[in-house]
Amino acid sequence: MEAFDPIRRLVAEALGTALLVATVVGSGIMADRLTGDDAVALLGNTIPTGAVLVVLITVLGPVSGAHFNPAVTIAFALRRSIARGMAAAYAIAQIAGALAGTAAAHLMFDLPVLQIAQTVRTGPAQWWSEIVATFGLVGVILGGLRFNAAAIPTLVGLYITAAYWFTASTSFANPAVAIGRAFTDTFSGIRPVDLPGFAVAEVAGAILAVGVFGWLLHPSHKPLRRALAEAAGPAQGT
Amino acid sequence: MEAFDPIRRLVAEALGTALLVATVVGSGIMADRLTGDDAVALLGNTIPTGAVLVVLITVLGPVSGAHFNPAVTIAFALRRSIARGMAAAYAIAQIAGALAGTAAAHLMFDLPVLQIAQTVRTGPAQWWSEIVATFGLVGVILGGLRFNAAAIPTLVGLYITAAYWFTASTSFANPAVAIGRAFTDTFSGIRPVDLPGFAVAEVAGAILAVGVFGWLLHPSHKPLRRALAEAAGPAQGT
Amino acid sequence: MEAFDPIRRLVAEALGTALLVATVVGSGIMADRLTGDDAVALLGNTIPTGAVLVVLITVLGPVSGAHFNPAVTIAFALRRSIARGMAAAYAIAQIAGALAGTAAAHLMFDLPVLQIAQTVRTGPAQWWSEIVATFGLVGVILGGLRFNAAAIPTLVGLYITAAYWFTASTSFANPAVAIGRAFTDTFSGIRPVDLPGFAVAEVAGAILAVGVFGWLLHPSHKPLRRALAEAAGPAQGT
Amino acid sequence: MEAFDPIRRLVAEALGTALLVATVVGSGIMADRLTGDDAVALLGNTIPTGAVLVVLITVLGPVSGAHFNPAVTIAFALRRSIARGMAAAYAIAQIAGALAGTAAAHLMFDLPVLQIAQTVRTGPAQWWSEIVATFGLVGVILGGLRFNAAAIPTLVGLYITAAYWFTASTSFANPAVAIGRAFTDTFSGIRPVDLPGFAVAEVAGAILAVGVFGWLLHPSHKPLRRALAEAAGPAQGT
Repeated sequence: MEAFDPIRRLVAEALGTALLVATVVGSGIMADRLTGDDAVALLGNTIPTGAVLVVLITVLGPVSGAHFNPAVTIAFALRRSIARGMAAAYAIAQIAGALAGTAAAHLMFDLPVLQIAQTVRTGPAQWWSEIVATFGLVGVILGGLRFNAAAIPTLVGLYITAAYWFTASTSFANPAVAIGRAFTDTFSGIRPVDLPGFAVAEVAGAILAVGVFGWLLHPSHKPLRRALAEAAGPAQGT
Repeated sequence: MEAFDPIRRLVAEALGTALLVATVVGSGIMADRLTGDDAVALLGNTIPTGAVLVVLITVLGPVSGAHFNPAVTIAFALRRSIARGMAAAYAIAQIAGALAGTAAAHLMFDLPVLQIAQTVRTGPAQWWSEIVATFGLVGVILGGLRFNAAAIPTLVGLYITAAYWFTASTSFANPAVAIGRAFTDTFSGIRPVDLPGFAVAEVAGAILAVGVFGWLLHPSHKPLRRALAEAAGPAQGT
Repeated sequence: MEAFDPIRRLVAEALGTALLVATVVGSGIMADRLTGDDAVALLGNTIPTGAVLVVLITVLGPVSGAHFNPAVTIAFALRRSIARGMAAAYAIAQIAGALAGTAAAHLMFDLPVLQIAQTVRTGPAQWWSEIVATFGLVGVILGGLRFNAAAIPTLVGLYITAAYWFTASTSFANPAVAIGRAFTDTFSGIRPVDLPGFAVAEVAGAILAVGVFGWLLHPSHKPLRRALAEAAGPAQGT
Repeated sequence: MEAFDPIRRLVAEALGTALLVATVVGSGIMADRLTGDDAVALLGNTIPTGAVLVVLITVLGPVSGAHFNPAVTIAFALRRSIARGMAAAYAIAQIAGALAGTAAAHLMFDLPVLQIAQTVRTGPAQWWSEIVATFGLVGVILGGLRFNAAAIPTLVGLYITAAYWFTASTSFANPAVAIGRAFTDTFSGIRPVDLPGFAVAEVAGAILAVGVFGWLLHPSHKPLRRALAEAAGPAQGT
């Protein structure tokens, strides 16, 4: 696979995150307008999000890696798969894309472009949900890279489909998407003041996954104690 | 892959578009009859449409390319992948197939064969939805062709599954299907007078995608300015 | 692929059809018990049926071809892919399996094992639905065989997922399954007196598909007239 | 594929079972909170479970085989694919993971960590459902191993998606998951007193599948009588 230049990689990250957020926010608005049953609305939010992830990761993955997510970029930086400066540029592109995606969705549904979310999403249960959700997401990506890279788009799409339902937070698992969702006062919104808790939990889940899966997925004859020590300090051990 | 003759290619385009439109219109009628919850009805319209697209593109793709969509045919004509005369014939076959598909669905549901839709679908938000929807559709096809052609049927099916929900227009993204849907006064209809707005938006989205993805998916060392200029005039640059 | 002996092939046809019918009938009972919304019930009937078809065709296809359907067996007999005597034995095994599947579902849901359906399914719109449904099913199988045999399980599962919704009859498309469904007075039942109309329509759709797709999928330089004549008499032409 | 050491294999079984049970229990709680329609709730429980199975088996399968299920481990022990001592250790890891998964879900949804289920699930219809469900599950795994090992994650995910609906018990098909579900008094719970009936039925279904599919999937020229005798005593015959 030929390498893509930085401009194209950053445009791919921004464009992919924009389409992802437009899907999350737009399908949330659509679902909320059409039904009074919240589980039906969540299905109408989940199925499009899972589907579009498969598509975006397949199409843009060869260009930029298709992170669309600062927590994923941090995981790859910990593993030294991306340089620090580029990782920072990725995060900026992702956040810019997320904001554009929210605006694009609002324009499609004839809503004010600029909004501030009022949906409360805070507390230990929500943060624990985000830790679990992002731990699983990064674990799935690392496992896919290890055993079946061609399946990663499908794995991520299916994982998020599940995580929307098995976490109390509907699994944001993505600080850039969370920022995009802070600027929509619709079904999928999150109050700006609740963003830091989510972001910290998501990054913690990503780091935990780098440690646990870094150890689990690489067979060796090291004694367990040393293996566990390395799991606690993954950036050195992998 | 051996080449198929023009007659078979045009029959494949007509037959595929007919089955696609029969699915869109038929599942809309079925869903609308069975439920009073509009989101459930849209799920009952979305899932069959996404599923049948995977099937039709897999089975008929090797015969005709499985465009089933004049906006897609225009995108390929811009890229010089199909001759102008054949592209025009494709569009005619697609429209004829769409009309036949609507009629076939009406016969299955014991409804008058000839109907005129009365559902209003107009205004900037709808047009912007169609631009986004078709931009994404053509981008997905170009990205699939570039990186994973075998995945295109699945990518298109999943993309449309998502786009039904993230656009306010439920993502027609297809002028031939829109014409077919103008002749059914059921769940999926569109007033004939609203067709031109949709068709212009869809073709605009397709052209935009040819430009943006033509630039994005092909790495090079060209300076950005020249690359962007080429993106604005894609038929020459790709 | 090694050949399987006739006993194993017939057991595979019976077992596969039994599990297919148990899924159709069982999920219909489950869905009907849990909701008053008929579209939700149909989703709860559709998704399991599509899913189990992918599974059964993948696992039993290498043993028997995984027809599970006399209309499909007739199509293969027309194409001389299966001997007449074996085709008849297949049909008997499929019908026996279908009856066992209905009984198994009744036992799972604590219902009387023997029942006679009272659901009326008759008239030209229903028959036309079954013609279209089976035409599409056989076309999908022939197209899959022609271009992507490994995808056939997925194609059939997705096609039936769509056809449940785009036909007014919910796409039986299978005389053996129809017979099994005549012996359950639940969501998915069909009056025994309505069976002949369905069976005739299904076989007609299958024969039509052998003709049309036999012509469409095989490129040649024959003049159109001769090609169309062969399409009308497909058993000789393919 | 390199071999993984016992510690990693057991951690993979525990972690995978924990994420599976967290999905089953968590999505059940989410669905139950959001809707009053039990079929919609079951869809919200089914889709995430099927999706997460595909993901977990893909990512952890190369480490441990991704049984996540003592009935599956027993089937492999009968076929001498896993040593007895390791099989016992697998079962313990699976049960420990299941209990952790239930606890993790309760923490995510801000519920008491320790609960005892009160949902009655007993009687011949339920046990017969579990026999059928586990027979099918093990049959699918054996068929996948025989003909298309790469498809096993998808096959298991789709099979369980179907089995949630075609069995009256919603297809536990897994004694470890059942134990985990005995400790949640939510949508997916099962009274502890009902566990033995489920476990016996599940193991019986698994043994039956080893016999039937052991015979069916391996072509030979043995006379039927001997083949059937071997099917009744599969551990010797395969």
